[in-house]
Amino acid sequence: MRQVYLDNAATTPLLPEVREAMLPYLGELFGNPSCLHDWGDAAREAIDNARDQVAQLIGANAEEIIFTGSGTESNNFAIKGLALAQQTKGKHVVVSAIEHFSVLHSARTLEKWGFELTLVPVDKYGVVDPEDIRRSIRKDTVLVSVMHANGEVGTIEPISEIAKITRENNVLFHTDAVATAGTIPVDVKVLGVDALSLAGNQFYGPKGIGALWIRKGVRIMPLLDGGVQEGGRRAGTENVPAIVGLGKAAELARINLATRVENLTPLRDRLLTELPGRIDHVVVTGHPQHRLPGNASICVEFIEGESMLMLLNSQGVAVSSGSACTSRALKASHVLIAVGLPHELAQGSVLFTLGIDNNDEDVDYVLKVMPPIVDRLRQMSPLYSKFTKAGKGGK
Amino acid sequence: MRQVYLDNAATTPLLPEVREAMLPYLGELFGNPSCLHDWGDAAREAIDNARDQVAQLIGANAEEIIFTGSGTESNNFAIKGLALAQQTKGKHVVVSAIEHFSVLHSARTLEKWGFELTLVPVDKYGVVDPEDIRRSIRKDTVLVSVMHANGEVGTIEPISEIAKITRENNVLFHTDAVATAGTIPVDVKVLGVDALSLAGNQFYGPKGIGALWIRKGVRIMPLLDGGVQEGGRRAGTENVPAIVGLGKAAELARINLATRVENLTPLRDRLLTELPGRIDHVVVTGHPQHRLPGNASICVEFIEGESMLMLLNSQGVAVSSGSACTSRALKASHVLIAVGLPHELAQGSVLFTLGIDNNDEDVDYVLKVMPPIVDRLRQMSPLYSKFTKAGKGGK
Repeated sequence: MRQVYLDNAATTPLLPEVREAMLPYLGELFGNPSCLHDWGDAAREAIDNARDQVAQLIGANAEEIIFTGSGTESNNFAIKGLALAQQTKGKHVVVSAIEHFSVLHSARTLEKWGFELTLVPVDKYGVVDPEDIRRSIRKDTVLVSVMHANGEVGTIEPISEIAKITRENNVLFHTDAVATAGTIPVDVKVLGVDALSLAGNQFYGPKGIGALWIRKGVRIMPLLDGGVQEGGRRAGTENVPAIVGLGKAAELARINLATRVENLTPLRDRLLTELPGRIDHVVVTGHPQHRLPGNASICVEFIEGESMLMLLNSQGVAVSSGSACTSRALKASHVLIAVGLPHELAQGSVLFTLGIDNNDEDVDYVLKVMPPIVDRLRQMSPLYSKFTKAGKGGK
Repeated sequence: MRQVYLDNAATTPLLPEVREAMLPYLGELFGNPSCLHDWGDAAREAIDNARDQVAQLIGANAEEIIFTGSGTESNNFAIKGLALAQQTKGKHVVVSAIEHFSVLHSARTLEKWGFELTLVPVDKYGVVDPEDIRRSIRKDTVLVSVMHANGEVGTIEPISEIAKITRENNVLFHTDAVATAGTIPVDVKVLGVDALSLAGNQFYGPKGIGALWIRKGVRIMPLLDGGVQEGGRRAGTENVPAIVGLGKAAELARINLATRVENLTPLRDRLLTELPGRIDHVVVTGHPQHRLPGNASICVEFIEGESMLMLLNSQGVAVSSGSACTSRALKASHVLIAVGLPHELAQGSVLFTLGIDNNDEDVDYVLKVMPPIVDRLRQMSPLYSKFTKAGKGGK
């Protein structure tokens, strides 16, 4: 049976070149970068090089990059660390309603610590209106966080417009670029943000490694106290192989970004246009133009996304029904609710996320196997039979 | 030139079997364990298996193991998470004066958050007196943390005696077992603790992975908010290859523990007895009996440990002068100050930590190259020439 992995938003495979770059650091180059001997020196040089590679991917300076253990850690660090470092100035933070839970729940934790939180809504495409950010900013606002793109619906946010507003108001602006760094062009100067999160496993680098970029001069309170690694801002022995892998993945992404976007976009567009042509009652979610090149997110009426996922899996196709991080919570996605979808429709979410290994044959295969699966699921759906009996439709 | 790595407290090399176990998860088994398809299933089964392996190493139940990104993260999580989860009960914590900075500085952060902290002293061998713990416990004490063994001086602490006292007083007890788990027998039931930290890179497993064991029923506040990974207690996509590596390293440690201790101990004892025989004015630090099998820590009078380290490195020998996590801070070790050494003597700290790759020839080599290095350094030391002119000694 054909195997088609279309869950690249959950995690991407490691590129062979990335694995090759990592292997020596899983072998004889095992030193601790903090050590003042040859073993330590070799490890330190490797992470210095990786820091350059990551900085180049996002147009930053190497010394502004802090390696973390994941995109989630980067987001926790940014939200909690930036807010806590400025709490004498004020205790109000602003985040969008469609942030990843690592941002949203960190902001909720700040609430427990005496901060106030404003959640900014999005439109039906999942877009944050920069004017809503302007209106939400108060005298005591210390931090705004809006993601660069949403991994579930693929919508790319107007970050540089929001950054103009936060700068005018002298408020720090963090963006979660986990879904975009290494996938579409990301330049911290163009975006105009003060802090930016990214994760290795989103662009063919390793799991267990992320980075937080913080503009030079911006203060942050460490999340992990201890040794003086990462300029005293993130303690713990550096994960050298993963850092090296992240660096290599960043270098390859920088070099190949345009080609990747060029290859992914038509595959995505085929799914987004041809699936609704073959299956009734399919709603495309996210923005029609401003969206990630690999993201084809839809909701299928009268089915459960989880069941769809299982049956697609039985045909060799891997997809998700929302964010991987919350897939086991089995709740309707807060993102789909925020864009205004009814709860029932949101339950029918199916998220195809293409990667560099996919091709037209993969899309053909999905277009072939999916309609009968939908039919089969709908035959079991009481809602669907009620709907068709009412004479409103059906194929 | 002979290469002799004697810095296993800083980090250990990866065992070939561990690397082999990890490689498939850096290859085709790249799935995200949260995903409900075959790729996710394979990853999830792998981390379930690793959780069992880690649990078996420390006599715990698998569901009590939370994977983290490092020993430092485990310690931060334990200290902050356990204290914050109980702050309605009280806001006083007790830690020993020789804890790793990931514990000490986490406790300092708690102070900023309104907690009170008692630092318990140690004797000249670095041993915590359980009666000092008893005396430090107050009505509002919610957490005690004493490390199982100190990585710098090698002293093993009387954890089970302390646990009796914390249990009598209904206070949670965390132990930092980063230096002991996988190195000497560690059984959470024998120790009687409520929480225990460990790290992969301390026993021939990977960097970037640690675990926190928490006794079932003990509440903890997450350090990393977000998805529902690790039972909702530690968000972020799991670092599958590193988790698999940690599991394999734990399995191998469990099987080979006795042999490793048997091989390391005589090498350690040769260093501890023969170095003072060949070099004047050497002080062995740590406990004469209750010490880690691979730890030979000394202070050499009239030299700087850092210079010693550099010259040993030029002879192919890797050592540290204290904790790797603080080596770049270039300050005298807080551990050596806590055991009562004068500041000047503490500056002459040289820490040999043996590993399973070392043998008698390595020890012979160190015993050969070290005395001339010490002589050379002392010739440049104004303190030493003052000392010898005063007619007090010299070789």
